[in-house]
Amino acid sequence: MENISANKSFGGWHKQYTHRADTLSCEMRFAIYLPPQVATGTKVPVVYWLSGLTCTDENFMQKAGAQRVAAELGVAIVAPDTSPRGDEVPDDPDASYDFGLGAGFYVNATQPPWNRHYRMYDYVVHELPTLIEANFPVSPQRAICGHSMGGHGALMIALRNPTRYSSVSAFSPISHPMNCPWGQKAFTGYLGDDQSQWAQYDSCELMKQTSEPVPALVDQGDQDPFLNEQLNPEALQHAAKQSQYPLELRMQTGYDHSYYFIASFIEDHLRFHAGHFQAN
Amino acid sequence: MENISANKSFGGWHKQYTHRADTLSCEMRFAIYLPPQVATGTKVPVVYWLSGLTCTDENFMQKAGAQRVAAELGVAIVAPDTSPRGDEVPDDPDASYDFGLGAGFYVNATQPPWNRHYRMYDYVVHELPTLIEANFPVSPQRAICGHSMGGHGALMIALRNPTRYSSVSAFSPISHPMNCPWGQKAFTGYLGDDQSQWAQYDSCELMKQTSEPVPALVDQGDQDPFLNEQLNPEALQHAAKQSQYPLELRMQTGYDHSYYFIASFIEDHLRFHAGHFQAN
Repeated sequence: MENISANKSFGGWHKQYTHRADTLSCEMRFAIYLPPQVATGTKVPVVYWLSGLTCTDENFMQKAGAQRVAAELGVAIVAPDTSPRGDEVPDDPDASYDFGLGAGFYVNATQPPWNRHYRMYDYVVHELPTLIEANFPVSPQRAICGHSMGGHGALMIALRNPTRYSSVSAFSPISHPMNCPWGQKAFTGYLGDDQSQWAQYDSCELMKQTSEPVPALVDQGDQDPFLNEQLNPEALQHAAKQSQYPLELRMQTGYDHSYYFIASFIEDHLRFHAGHFQAN
Repeated sequence: MENISANKSFGGWHKQYTHRADTLSCEMRFAIYLPPQVATGTKVPVVYWLSGLTCTDENFMQKAGAQRVAAELGVAIVAPDTSPRGDEVPDDPDASYDFGLGAGFYVNATQPPWNRHYRMYDYVVHELPTLIEANFPVSPQRAICGHSMGGHGALMIALRNPTRYSSVSAFSPISHPMNCPWGQKAFTGYLGDDQSQWAQYDSCELMKQTSEPVPALVDQGDQDPFLNEQLNPEALQHAAKQSQYPLELRMQTGYDHSYYFIASFIEDHLRFHAGHFQAN
């Protein structure tokens, strides 16, 4: 693991690291925000942030304004990249923004040529937390949060791993990927045509069946240009009703899909996660 | 004037506009943040933000996290671009980052070929505020603030126009451009070799002579890689002592030149400006 940048931020530190990711068979970069409390030896809980299509570890750290609140609450934030990277990693031959590089969809691909590198599910759920917890002054308490494709990733990962996360939240998540163009394209490419394989990565399908819920907060702007075709929060609400899932879905009037939206409400999300950390 | 984007942000609006700038003989883009108070008919004061080398109107609006505080305080923020733009505008033949496009240094150039378009001083001091005050629900109260090259611009402009601004602040300003490589290159190119022409754009020279001070706050990171060669806050401190200028210069331990530094202290700057608005 190599430290490649460090910026003091609200009394703590934003740092970027590269490391060899065994699950992804490539070198990966991630960012971590360490709040000022770690300087006094406190082990802090970690909020994992999963970004949306086209992003790297940088978008959230530069644009969300999360460090101020993380510094106050004493939580670390870890932001991985959104796909495997590097010359050896195949990309969509069409170089589209919604498949291949920058669009890993947080699944373990089963279809060649993607199945060697595109294993973001295992990377985010297992390899990265193991690395973080071995190398930084953090506690084993984790929450997970994300935007759009990363909102799908956060919800799906928390639903599948309820003992690993104390809470989950999302901005504008792709709530029902089996039933929208972005999700259908990605799942067909990474997982093949058998839709029974898709359901294990679909938050609505998972939420209908869960018996061990993780508290969930979702914010969705009602002026989001992707709302109707891609995001489908009504399906998530419907699934939550079926299983009496503790989902708080907030429609935010006038807000769009951008980081201006995320920045406006990230404080609520971090306080939500901090509240559940304290309860553990 | 054409509105080209709008994003709801902390209950207010971030918007970008393009317009024909007469002083610069080209089309320019700027960004404005309008806080929620304008929806109830309140006219709000304006903080002008001047960015550093290579920036556009977008860097500050995306990375500084200023909207939360501006929304609370009820102030607008206006961020212009850092140089004239467009195919007809000459650039440094070497395409360097510190002269030409993205590096207007907030002066009125006198030397060809720069003197036709590179008139950022007149644009920022006169044309842009006139446009803003004619088209948006703002009061005539103004403050000015900036980073690096924009910190130079903010201090220099406030020192030359003490009746137009109620306060000024800067992050990591190029405090004494006549005496550092960035400033000498820019002033030679835009203003020629006669250093008497440079002094009217040098904050240290202006501060030594001023009789009508504008309250000033400056933050400087002590781990800024440009601190010793380019920024020279000691010269500004020295000039302030000579004229008993109301300068508060704060050295911030561990901080660098990045937006992570700006984001950490922008709240202090906006509250400083709001306090001086209220006093007027």
